[in-house]
Amino acid sequence: MAYPDPHGAEAKMKSQHIRSRWVATAEPGGPDVLDDYVISVDQSSGKITALTPANEFGGTPDLHLPNHLLIPGLINAHTHTPMSLLRGYADDLPLNEWLFQHIFPTEGKFVFEAPLEEAEEFVRLGSELACYEMLKTGTTLFNDMYFHGDVTANVVRKAGMKAVLTKAGLLYFGDDARFSDLVSSNTKFCSELISSGDKSIKPSLLPHSVYMVPPEKLREVKDEYDKACAGGHVVIHTHVHETKKEIADVLEKAGKSALQVLEDLGMLNQRTVAAHCVHMTDEEIALMAKTGASVAHCPRSNLKLGSGIARTADMLKSGVNVCLGTDGASSNNTLDMLTEMQYASMIAKGVTGDPTVLPAREVLEMATLRGARALGLESETGSIKVGKAADLVAVDLGRLEASPIYDPLGQLVYTNSRQVSHVWIDGKCVVRECEVLTMLSMDLAATDKLVSKLRDFRKSLPARE
Amino acid sequence: MAYPDPHGAEAKMKSQHIRSRWVATAEPGGPDVLDDYVISVDQSSGKITALTPANEFGGTPDLHLPNHLLIPGLINAHTHTPMSLLRGYADDLPLNEWLFQHIFPTEGKFVFEAPLEEAEEFVRLGSELACYEMLKTGTTLFNDMYFHGDVTANVVRKAGMKAVLTKAGLLYFGDDARFSDLVSSNTKFCSELISSGDKSIKPSLLPHSVYMVPPEKLREVKDEYDKACAGGHVVIHTHVHETKKEIADVLEKAGKSALQVLEDLGMLNQRTVAAHCVHMTDEEIALMAKTGASVAHCPRSNLKLGSGIARTADMLKSGVNVCLGTDGASSNNTLDMLTEMQYASMIAKGVTGDPTVLPAREVLEMATLRGARALGLESETGSIKVGKAADLVAVDLGRLEASPIYDPLGQLVYTNSRQVSHVWIDGKCVVRECEVLTMLSMDLAATDKLVSKLRDFRKSLPARE
Repeated sequence: MAYPDPHGAEAKMKSQHIRSRWVATAEPGGPDVLDDYVISVDQSSGKITALTPANEFGGTPDLHLPNHLLIPGLINAHTHTPMSLLRGYADDLPLNEWLFQHIFPTEGKFVFEAPLEEAEEFVRLGSELACYEMLKTGTTLFNDMYFHGDVTANVVRKAGMKAVLTKAGLLYFGDDARFSDLVSSNTKFCSELISSGDKSIKPSLLPHSVYMVPPEKLREVKDEYDKACAGGHVVIHTHVHETKKEIADVLEKAGKSALQVLEDLGMLNQRTVAAHCVHMTDEEIALMAKTGASVAHCPRSNLKLGSGIARTADMLKSGVNVCLGTDGASSNNTLDMLTEMQYASMIAKGVTGDPTVLPAREVLEMATLRGARALGLESETGSIKVGKAADLVAVDLGRLEASPIYDPLGQLVYTNSRQVSHVWIDGKCVVRECEVLTMLSMDLAATDKLVSKLRDFRKSLPARE
Repeated sequence: MAYPDPHGAEAKMKSQHIRSRWVATAEPGGPDVLDDYVISVDQSSGKITALTPANEFGGTPDLHLPNHLLIPGLINAHTHTPMSLLRGYADDLPLNEWLFQHIFPTEGKFVFEAPLEEAEEFVRLGSELACYEMLKTGTTLFNDMYFHGDVTANVVRKAGMKAVLTKAGLLYFGDDARFSDLVSSNTKFCSELISSGDKSIKPSLLPHSVYMVPPEKLREVKDEYDKACAGGHVVIHTHVHETKKEIADVLEKAGKSALQVLEDLGMLNQRTVAAHCVHMTDEEIALMAKTGASVAHCPRSNLKLGSGIARTADMLKSGVNVCLGTDGASSNNTLDMLTEMQYASMIAKGVTGDPTVLPAREVLEMATLRGARALGLESETGSIKVGKAADLVAVDLGRLEASPIYDPLGQLVYTNSRQVSHVWIDGKCVVRECEVLTMLSMDLAATDKLVSKLRDFRKSLPARE
């Protein structure tokens, strides 16, 4: 096998032709899996130009993947990348203890109250770690929520990935002027991003949640948003109905559910990505379907924090656009979307008692095309289709412990020994034979130093009983 | 790093000393993780002779594992090894359709009604595939249920593993004489195994379930069992309360629950391993605790087939010995016990809403020491303790995508990029640097040929809608 070199030959190619044993396009209506196809990519535009059965392809493919399933790049619809530094920092704890006694104090020390340079360093190193893991596991595009998003954006560009993000998550702690400043700096970030025509970074606004940003402050966000971002698609990315406690708290304060607050403010629409939606009534599910808002289902984080199990089968049946996210690595503890797909399918079958729900084909679509739809990028990416970006992932199914193969798509979702071997983004090879080409020189010494400080700080936190 | 060669130098060594960055002994009462220890093994007995802090160890270790967590060999308490040939054969189907329209007809053709030689070939090749995967993922001992167990036993010996099994699973199809023959051939197999003093294979009886072996036939099994196996520990391995339908069916026919049937026959005791126990009342949980019978919890299979989610947190709280199994690869679709541990913990937290249940430490114990207890082998294996067999697994936690590490045990359970690098069974190295040393020459050509026949037969089965 010969491989195109992204830093040499590949860049000079006019077209690239990748032959794969199987291809799952994630395009609705088509067959689940194409058998032995060649995908052609125009290298200057980075777009897919043809899908040809291998036995009808005239030339010699540039790359032959004999045991591989080629899928669209995976789309992580909800994550907090810098929190990869806190992977496994506080396991097996109740959510409130986890958040208020471990995560927030640590972020307070290292991000919120730290000198700007140190906070940016935290975000840079955490984002690097996250992008590395995401590329290793086949994610090409992610919807991020954190602080110092400009720093993450630079890491994303270096990694050759795509992301939807903004300057900073919006939290309201009682200081009106400070909140207004935060909102304007974010809308400014968004409108500049729109004007710049940036191809890899798309803008979002991040009101953390109704419980952290009360209705009157959300209205301010909405007004600024409408003004500043009229010229382009800006995602509204927020947490919705993650825990029963949070729902009860909002109900008591606002007299209605968080979802209803968003709807009444006109913030529930096709641009909305509502992370979690664990606890939803039939009416709330119908509302999501009616408004076209998307749910970023995060099964592993919801399980691990004891938040519950979302009604995905019901939401899908009602026509809600359900996509998948990993949440941050501090509550998962991985950013591996293939694993997230598996959990989504398995727990939906388990809680409904119906093993036909969320079949392999559907969870692949949730992790790709429906993620693209949620982020307003459905016409550009999310499936393997002529005219779309060549955001592609090759998964090696050739390991003995994953054999035999009757259904490559089932193998992808339900076994664990499948291995992402190659990733292309806009036709550029960023992972080759499991090596992340764009991240060969990470600042690991700085990461070790920072982790060592985090370890020391962790000792000052309350011990697990 | 220098590695002992199991076929050369290692065999001649008197003692072997393995230094590991972390050690989780799974011994109750001790610390979760020992920091930088040397484990010493007597090569002639295959037993652990000492655990020494590395800085107090006088000599030079034979092997240094700088980024690894050393754990006891994992114990798979419920599986059907030959069914690895049917991995992914029929995904996303309702249980009855899966079993009666896909799995049983295929096993009928290739095992039950096939000429003996072909049936044995199926079992041999399937067991090879399963043992390979189990060793790759750190399982050293498994509790098997299938047919032609003598064939599986030979594969186990070749692989250098340990197993609890018998000649054949007991199913009653209305032919009394045939059933009696089956029972006697099994009890004979057990008593011969006991007399032989076989160290790697321990005996069991396999009444499939109360719904497949009615009470009067179970009594026959019990009587034969008491006579033939008085001289040794024989495991009673059966399916209990896997689905609501099966419980209702038995209740209608027998006038009591399957669990009560077993109890009334004296078949619920410390030798009983009850696979699944998904649907259990408080009284039934109390009965399990009182009798000392073990539950082999199979979370992934129960999810994937839509059987439900077992009440593990309640069972553990009531003092039931809950261990872990993968079930067969045709309903999982892997035999990877680390993944099973993760699912057990995650879904227990999710359904109870309590993230403190089934912490990492406890699921490790379920996958090791409690499995050994269930199989009557607690004094011999299941934890890292002086005097016990050196059944050891080294897991490499050094990959960047699994970093940083705050708690190696949490990392083992909740991340996915941990990699089993070494496995020792009775002190013999059977996996080294991810290579399965005892299975370098598998009959893969024969497997391919058989799988190709299975693929053809699969086409004759009803298609998924």
